[in-house]
Amino acid sequence: MAGNSFGDLFRISTFGESHGKAIGVILDGCPPNIAIDEDFIQSELDKRKPGQSKITTQRKESDTAQILSGVFEGKSTGTPIAILIPNEDQRSKDYSHIKDIFRPSHADYTYHMKYGHRDYRGGGRSSARETAARVAAGAIAKSFLKQHGIEIFAHVSGVGKIESPNLDTKDLEALLDLRESNIARCADPATANEMIEFIDAVRKSGDTVGGRISTIIRNVPVGLGEPVFDKLHADLAKAMMSINAVHGFEYGSGFAGSELLGSQHNDLFVSEEHDIHRTKTHTNFSGGIQGGISNGMDITFKTAFKPVATIMRDQQTIDSNGNEATVQGKGRHDPCVVSRAVIIVEAMAALVIADHLLKQSSYKNVR
Amino acid sequence: MAGNSFGDLFRISTFGESHGKAIGVILDGCPPNIAIDEDFIQSELDKRKPGQSKITTQRKESDTAQILSGVFEGKSTGTPIAILIPNEDQRSKDYSHIKDIFRPSHADYTYHMKYGHRDYRGGGRSSARETAARVAAGAIAKSFLKQHGIEIFAHVSGVGKIESPNLDTKDLEALLDLRESNIARCADPATANEMIEFIDAVRKSGDTVGGRISTIIRNVPVGLGEPVFDKLHADLAKAMMSINAVHGFEYGSGFAGSELLGSQHNDLFVSEEHDIHRTKTHTNFSGGIQGGISNGMDITFKTAFKPVATIMRDQQTIDSNGNEATVQGKGRHDPCVVSRAVIIVEAMAALVIADHLLKQSSYKNVR
Amino acid sequence: MAGNSFGDLFRISTFGESHGKAIGVILDGCPPNIAIDEDFIQSELDKRKPGQSKITTQRKESDTAQILSGVFEGKSTGTPIAILIPNEDQRSKDYSHIKDIFRPSHADYTYHMKYGHRDYRGGGRSSARETAARVAAGAIAKSFLKQHGIEIFAHVSGVGKIESPNLDTKDLEALLDLRESNIARCADPATANEMIEFIDAVRKSGDTVGGRISTIIRNVPVGLGEPVFDKLHADLAKAMMSINAVHGFEYGSGFAGSELLGSQHNDLFVSEEHDIHRTKTHTNFSGGIQGGISNGMDITFKTAFKPVATIMRDQQTIDSNGNEATVQGKGRHDPCVVSRAVIIVEAMAALVIADHLLKQSSYKNVR
Amino acid sequence: MAGNSFGDLFRISTFGESHGKAIGVILDGCPPNIAIDEDFIQSELDKRKPGQSKITTQRKESDTAQILSGVFEGKSTGTPIAILIPNEDQRSKDYSHIKDIFRPSHADYTYHMKYGHRDYRGGGRSSARETAARVAAGAIAKSFLKQHGIEIFAHVSGVGKIESPNLDTKDLEALLDLRESNIARCADPATANEMIEFIDAVRKSGDTVGGRISTIIRNVPVGLGEPVFDKLHADLAKAMMSINAVHGFEYGSGFAGSELLGSQHNDLFVSEEHDIHRTKTHTNFSGGIQGGISNGMDITFKTAFKPVATIMRDQQTIDSNGNEATVQGKGRHDPCVVSRAVIIVEAMAALVIADHLLKQSSYKNVR
Repeated sequence: MAGNSFGDLFRISTFGESHGKAIGVILDGCPPNIAIDEDFIQSELDKRKPGQSKITTQRKESDTAQILSGVFEGKSTGTPIAILIPNEDQRSKDYSHIKDIFRPSHADYTYHMKYGHRDYRGGGRSSARETAARVAAGAIAKSFLKQHGIEIFAHVSGVGKIESPNLDTKDLEALLDLRESNIARCADPATANEMIEFIDAVRKSGDTVGGRISTIIRNVPVGLGEPVFDKLHADLAKAMMSINAVHGFEYGSGFAGSELLGSQHNDLFVSEEHDIHRTKTHTNFSGGIQGGISNGMDITFKTAFKPVATIMRDQQTIDSNGNEATVQGKGRHDPCVVSRAVIIVEAMAALVIADHLLKQSSYKNVR
Repeated sequence: MAGNSFGDLFRISTFGESHGKAIGVILDGCPPNIAIDEDFIQSELDKRKPGQSKITTQRKESDTAQILSGVFEGKSTGTPIAILIPNEDQRSKDYSHIKDIFRPSHADYTYHMKYGHRDYRGGGRSSARETAARVAAGAIAKSFLKQHGIEIFAHVSGVGKIESPNLDTKDLEALLDLRESNIARCADPATANEMIEFIDAVRKSGDTVGGRISTIIRNVPVGLGEPVFDKLHADLAKAMMSINAVHGFEYGSGFAGSELLGSQHNDLFVSEEHDIHRTKTHTNFSGGIQGGISNGMDITFKTAFKPVATIMRDQQTIDSNGNEATVQGKGRHDPCVVSRAVIIVEAMAALVIADHLLKQSSYKNVR
Repeated sequence: MAGNSFGDLFRISTFGESHGKAIGVILDGCPPNIAIDEDFIQSELDKRKPGQSKITTQRKESDTAQILSGVFEGKSTGTPIAILIPNEDQRSKDYSHIKDIFRPSHADYTYHMKYGHRDYRGGGRSSARETAARVAAGAIAKSFLKQHGIEIFAHVSGVGKIESPNLDTKDLEALLDLRESNIARCADPATANEMIEFIDAVRKSGDTVGGRISTIIRNVPVGLGEPVFDKLHADLAKAMMSINAVHGFEYGSGFAGSELLGSQHNDLFVSEEHDIHRTKTHTNFSGGIQGGISNGMDITFKTAFKPVATIMRDQQTIDSNGNEATVQGKGRHDPCVVSRAVIIVEAMAALVIADHLLKQSSYKNVR
Repeated sequence: MAGNSFGDLFRISTFGESHGKAIGVILDGCPPNIAIDEDFIQSELDKRKPGQSKITTQRKESDTAQILSGVFEGKSTGTPIAILIPNEDQRSKDYSHIKDIFRPSHADYTYHMKYGHRDYRGGGRSSARETAARVAAGAIAKSFLKQHGIEIFAHVSGVGKIESPNLDTKDLEALLDLRESNIARCADPATANEMIEFIDAVRKSGDTVGGRISTIIRNVPVGLGEPVFDKLHADLAKAMMSINAVHGFEYGSGFAGSELLGSQHNDLFVSEEHDIHRTKTHTNFSGGIQGGISNGMDITFKTAFKPVATIMRDQQTIDSNGNEATVQGKGRHDPCVVSRAVIIVEAMAALVIADHLLKQSSYKNVR
């Protein structure tokens, strides 16, 4: 209710502030007997961690995950899996100058007004550092989904006005290799180079820039998603919009689809299979979801991230008494978040699918 | 959990199929002593009901709301408010031809596969008829919010490739009058005429078209929204994406904002007020929400609707045995849903804000 | 959250006041393809309805259930099942005398103080009339459980100081016949006669009396119940304590068990089966639940009901201004609720087991 | 959903196994600006910790609480409060003998069957060690309630057949001193001595014994509790029944009340105050709750604990293949849990009241 949990049956609750002792997560509802691979969790965290490259923040955090419970002899037990990620490289004094000043377009003002009392160091709870906890839990969700053959692939499809061309998505593993071959995490190498150059220039000018991430989820069984309010795409939307800096979400044809005619947009069934369990459609404007429920086609969606609010330039603002003030551009921040956010998007997508897989299973097998 | 409820403290649960006896809603958590105006509920339902104009479906439903409980002597009692809306003008035989056929881009196939057993008449539970129940509950939410001075205004800002120019939003009541002055429900009369002409042409050709709705919520107190997962915009996104045919959501600067630089996008504080309770920003790229929490500025968001799947043309498809089939264009359907959906968008927005108002109140007053 | 819903996956939400237009329930999460037998629902309601016999209230209500949604061609569709029960024989004027007076040991005072505004007619929402809605939903839960071979049997084991001897519980159907053979609903006919005579005498003296109900749930699969907080017996306790007038709950050995030694109380395993899926214990002090999880033995519990507060005698009390007043013994009330409450206890037990069956199924089948 | 969380608005989620690295809790929903006193949390944990006296288990755990988040400069921030309690004195090899054997009346068998895979060391997740996490969170709930003047007092009112006489409850602080003056935690010193002697004798004989705890909650505002399902006493019942070994719960007049007549049981109003905000009743058979809602009188309830299952004697049982086996009486266990459980009962009571206080506040202040 207080906003720090996500999911119903496969449910995470995160805790921790950017400059506190640690951040972490409890994953409750993970089925028993799932192999938990700590190396895989760590490799996922490494893709999100700060200090990876010249186009990310230089804060250094090893982001080492410690599993405290719920795993015995390498497998989940069905009890809560608690994961702790200690904070290491806080430089809290970097933030003493904003103790009484509200940074523009940050959560400083709204947290101050909501709670009256806030941990201002590094953004406290509003910091995107919290998403490391999501990535750790998302890695377990991915392991669970892998047993069901479900694949998730996200990449940076846009930075500023730079846009990746459409990808050939037949082989998601090959695309993953392409994505990981560059620090922008765009699966189109030429576009990736363009993005890196642009972000680096933006960074040097003390500025930041927004971007977009495109995601595909493959091999989702038909039938996931609850009708009416908990439509699969509605839960995906909430999951994505809950990631720091996200300002937009669309699935399938998205905003562009709203310009089309029904005769252009309808996904006609392929009638060759003669097996309704393996039905396909010629097009996929529906993005793999019809009436809120997966139809077995690829689930596709796109997420838009605003530019990071902290820029390395002085800005006019107000202080906690409402008086004019100047906030200085200090600290270590990302010029563009999308290359790190790719793994957060995948984690949240995995958590949504895992939750709906359990929901579907709850009555699928009791008739 | 089964997907038919929305909200936590101000919570609705809807029920009913398009061609069953009735649809309805239970609203649980409405505070006591709220004046419940049945005429207002009805006037809201009238804006959503079918058969309003030449650009909506010709199904005739009076959509008369009956309050069964929770209201005594004209005021809410704090107990569940149950509202019943009987179905009247079902023509179920219009649907016998799709009993064993899956209409393209409908929920027919996914419901069939999920449940094994479905009420195919008029789309059953997947029909947008369910949204009448939301509008009835939304009317009560609006009454509640009105006591707090909160205003909600939505209008059709786009149909196909037609796009309304930006509105002067100083006077929302005047805009509402403009919107209600035309059947397209676009507050820009010139654009409205263009839309009506276009939708009518689309209808005559047996086709459908998508569109977009823009919304403003004004006078939301600072501090609404829970951090991390239940960010105010994340809940708005889920609410909007749960409306039939919605394929996209963006708030504030949205997708366009992801192309900007931080130095362009940051909303600088106006420092004239010297009262942090009345703080304003020069721009509002943040759409009234920072760190997931309202900052007191107008909350703005946009929603994209795909074209209605049912077109008045024969389409190739498959039947429930997986064999090729032809689905005929029959029944009474909307050529474009957005002019009726405006009131659904407002209702869902009202429900989200009411829920967060109660959440905020839960601890605001206990210190 | 507002207290009118119960269950997580098999979830009911009830609405309605004693003297409003109707009461009812939405059951959300009922799996599809469950046969819904309206006659069975009605027969269950008939066991709870008022006016059954000389030892129940003389209010006449047919309690006719109308299914509004969620059932198609006699089977559940997986969508919300809404059931309406119109109110018929309200005599609201019987209650005008308590509009401004608080009846002792009723909810009058607490509702008045909590909400400020209440429907005082017949107790409004606090009336046990609400439990008819639970019985209707419970009948569906029973139908669902029957498919899994699960049986539920409750009977009146005590009235005032009268206590039924222990029953031979081998044949629950035979016990059910014995129970239904008398208006006290005690499965021991001799005790039943004693109870009936006593309740009738209490009624004639204008007084009321409390009682106890004992319940057995048989053939519950091993593994139902979630550890720590949602232990199976904790959910049963909440379900029972939510029934009007219940003041106590115990399972297995209960309060008496707290007087024993561990060496007396431990349920030793029967080692003959050599099949851990069919394990039995020699004794059943555990009441079929160990560590909060069903072990396959009979689940047994007992529920204590206080005497009905409305007595046919004048009582000193206070009015809504805090001044001394006299409340008159008026209206039609039960001298003892347990013979009608038996079916409510069974309904709530069925709802708890159905909910946990779905929970167990959610991950049991996904490995 | 998976059973490791409790509460809605003031919500805890616990994690950890008896012999894992640590146990802990996340408290989400604690209002901001509550003073968090680590010494008080520790003093509460010290009352529950093992090894306190000759009548508790000799396992030595310092149970040192580490606050990881949610507290800044000594006050809650409104964000999740995570508390970690490392495990220190596990002797896991004490348990290797039960790896494949099911101890009678333990959770061994049910966990094995439910999950297929369990951490058998020290009972794993089913161990009462988990309750230390509840006590830590309960200490914060108590601090919050103290600001509202609410007091909670529990003591051991029965061990085996020994029963404490009724206490004069005018001064709860004095009773607390009496309770803490003896290792039995019974506020009647003479009875306490009797209990200690008896428990010690039971312990020496390698046996265990059950007991009872009585609780009073004072100064609860009128109006707490939600009607119908989330009645205040229903939530208290669930909270108490979720504590390891609890087999019974009653409030107010309880089981004994079910033997009374209405004319004996009704709590008549005291009409002297002439202020309905300060209303009292002559008797308190209602236990401070009417219609599920607090009436301002003392809330009273009693909880029954079965004898600990682990006895220091060999018992016949079965192994995981269903074959006969002998389980040896080994390890360090409590001869009677109630003297340590007193503080767990208080903690859970505090959590229930805090949760309902926030619920009440959610709409009390929005009219």
